[in-house]
Amino acid sequence: MRAAVMRDFRLVTDTVPDPVPGPGEVLVKTLGCGICGSDLHALKYTKQFLENSPQRTSAFDANRDVVMGHEFCAEILDYGPGCVKRLPPGTRVCSMPILMRNGAPTSVGYSNDVPGGYAERMVLMEPLLLPVPNGLSTERAALTEPMAVGLHAVEKANLTADDISVVIGCGPIGLSVIAALRARGARPIIAADYSPLRRKLAETLGADVVVDPAKQSPYTSFRELAELSKSGERMPINPLSGTPELRPAVFFECVGMPGVIDQMMVGAERGCRFVIVGVCMVPDQIRPLLAISKELNLQFVLGYTPDEFARTLALIAEGTLDVAPLITGKVGVDGVADAFRDLANPEAHAKIIVEPWRVSRPQETAARQGAR
Amino acid sequence: MRAAVMRDFRLVTDTVPDPVPGPGEVLVKTLGCGICGSDLHALKYTKQFLENSPQRTSAFDANRDVVMGHEFCAEILDYGPGCVKRLPPGTRVCSMPILMRNGAPTSVGYSNDVPGGYAERMVLMEPLLLPVPNGLSTERAALTEPMAVGLHAVEKANLTADDISVVIGCGPIGLSVIAALRARGARPIIAADYSPLRRKLAETLGADVVVDPAKQSPYTSFRELAELSKSGERMPINPLSGTPELRPAVFFECVGMPGVIDQMMVGAERGCRFVIVGVCMVPDQIRPLLAISKELNLQFVLGYTPDEFARTLALIAEGTLDVAPLITGKVGVDGVADAFRDLANPEAHAKIIVEPWRVSRPQETAARQGAR
Repeated sequence: MRAAVMRDFRLVTDTVPDPVPGPGEVLVKTLGCGICGSDLHALKYTKQFLENSPQRTSAFDANRDVVMGHEFCAEILDYGPGCVKRLPPGTRVCSMPILMRNGAPTSVGYSNDVPGGYAERMVLMEPLLLPVPNGLSTERAALTEPMAVGLHAVEKANLTADDISVVIGCGPIGLSVIAALRARGARPIIAADYSPLRRKLAETLGADVVVDPAKQSPYTSFRELAELSKSGERMPINPLSGTPELRPAVFFECVGMPGVIDQMMVGAERGCRFVIVGVCMVPDQIRPLLAISKELNLQFVLGYTPDEFARTLALIAEGTLDVAPLITGKVGVDGVADAFRDLANPEAHAKIIVEPWRVSRPQETAARQGAR
Repeated sequence: MRAAVMRDFRLVTDTVPDPVPGPGEVLVKTLGCGICGSDLHALKYTKQFLENSPQRTSAFDANRDVVMGHEFCAEILDYGPGCVKRLPPGTRVCSMPILMRNGAPTSVGYSNDVPGGYAERMVLMEPLLLPVPNGLSTERAALTEPMAVGLHAVEKANLTADDISVVIGCGPIGLSVIAALRARGARPIIAADYSPLRRKLAETLGADVVVDPAKQSPYTSFRELAELSKSGERMPINPLSGTPELRPAVFFECVGMPGVIDQMMVGAERGCRFVIVGVCMVPDQIRPLLAISKELNLQFVLGYTPDEFARTLALIAEGTLDVAPLITGKVGVDGVADAFRDLANPEAHAKIIVEPWRVSRPQETAARQGAR
């Protein structure tokens, strides 16, 4: 089959062996697969990626081929031995990108043996298959995986009706958090990013206040909102501190760079909670005293549960999670290397979908970009 | 009045003016006041203490006298103007160490104008006075403040019936966390400290497993316990990871030194929660990736609420919070400087009570230590 292959720390288009479904596994045709920032990272900083990967399952030999891609929608072609075959061939499906091999979980798309969605075919685990609801487009269904990351982050935030949400960083993960907050009816949502395109997408996906940190601090925006109650009245004075109470708030760290957590600790107020979704790959410095003086809470999050993954697909299908604005380009396997380069520029793209059966037209992503 | 005074970065015994109660304030006779580790810190590292103090209210001019002491039990002598005088003079009372001055809170014991408990008299706020229940000794009542810190930390942990508690560091704060956990019926409690005296006190206060980290990792002890359910059965296997689930756990950081949070992140398992009670005064390094891969939660805590303070006094009075083993020495105001030196050695002391009206016998703390 044709595939975009990570080989010698580069992406090349090549023909690789078709995967063969083992017991309980299903052969599928890849219809669409989103390109994830982690894949860019795995290509550019392979060594650090392997050393530091939060998913212990994502271990591969960098000297052998890897077909990446873990945000996919596919069509059932055939079943391996021992399957119950609940869904007929031809059914479009999504799945968490996990495959059990030798009793241990393996990441689909970060493995030498289990190809991901930047190829024409994959094998998946039958019990994890979720049929795509009728009428939902393939490209939207392919966004289930990154949107589940946002949904999970919002679930772990234990939001109350009073909470203000502040999303720091509006890359694909920050945008998926904003969409999940909006789907849940959480208001207000403050979003901050230096990129005009990302700020525009944040607004489209439902942020109430969108801030360019170069011009206005998101923490100032938060404090302005927090001085009033949900119903718009001045918050009461705390008798022991002599200062006004503030509305509670959850800050979502969706940048993943060193220094951001400390900056959030400076900007936040007493009792604020942080959900750390961005993946900072290097050690970072915090000032515990600052966190103590404000009694801050930090919830680090990763991935999603099977239930959250299934709920995300359902929410996308019913239109509650609006994902279409995120899709800014489509390429064939020939176009993956260029798409990786294009994605490094936040002004050019949010999410590019790889359609492995597509006849590549290299100009396409540029054309769509020009049309925005 | 006689007082142990912080002057020119030393402790001296001197006579200072009696405080005068303002409107809504009460003049009290100090019966007993515990020496807190923060006071040792404020004396030895005054500049850093003032720069970094988590209590913004603890601002004083280091070039003027300060009478420290914020863990006290006192007796009502007289009322200032505008008091309701609910409690008769002679009543023994405890109070949160806060006084409102010019509409702003001031820390009793960290102020040039509001003397703390290392002196014969103090002024307190009438609304914060709590009568000491009949029959409760003064020295135990004086431990309300540090024990409230432990109670608050345990409250913020949101413990479930299944949680294992792990207390890292058994100084006065770690011991107060252990006592609060035991008072709540939380089991099992694992406690770790390098000091034999502190390990002995941890055991006396109710820790189920007491570990010398030089010989055995507390994280190994935790994992051994976590592999079995509360009822002693093997924990179930997670189908997606292929490994056993572990019992949930809360780790209490009661050391306050850089590097401890990172060490806890290495030792903890997926889903563990940390309550950070120790006050690390310098920047610290964490590895966000480690925290993300385990979905850790960090709750930083400080102080206590008025309700928690009152509940702590009641729990000490009814014997649910056992504090007597913590008291390892008593001194008069003359003995405070020596007591500060003695407290630097964890083998010598846990908590020394200053009794300002006592005729000092400098040998006393040494004598009690010998008697252990």
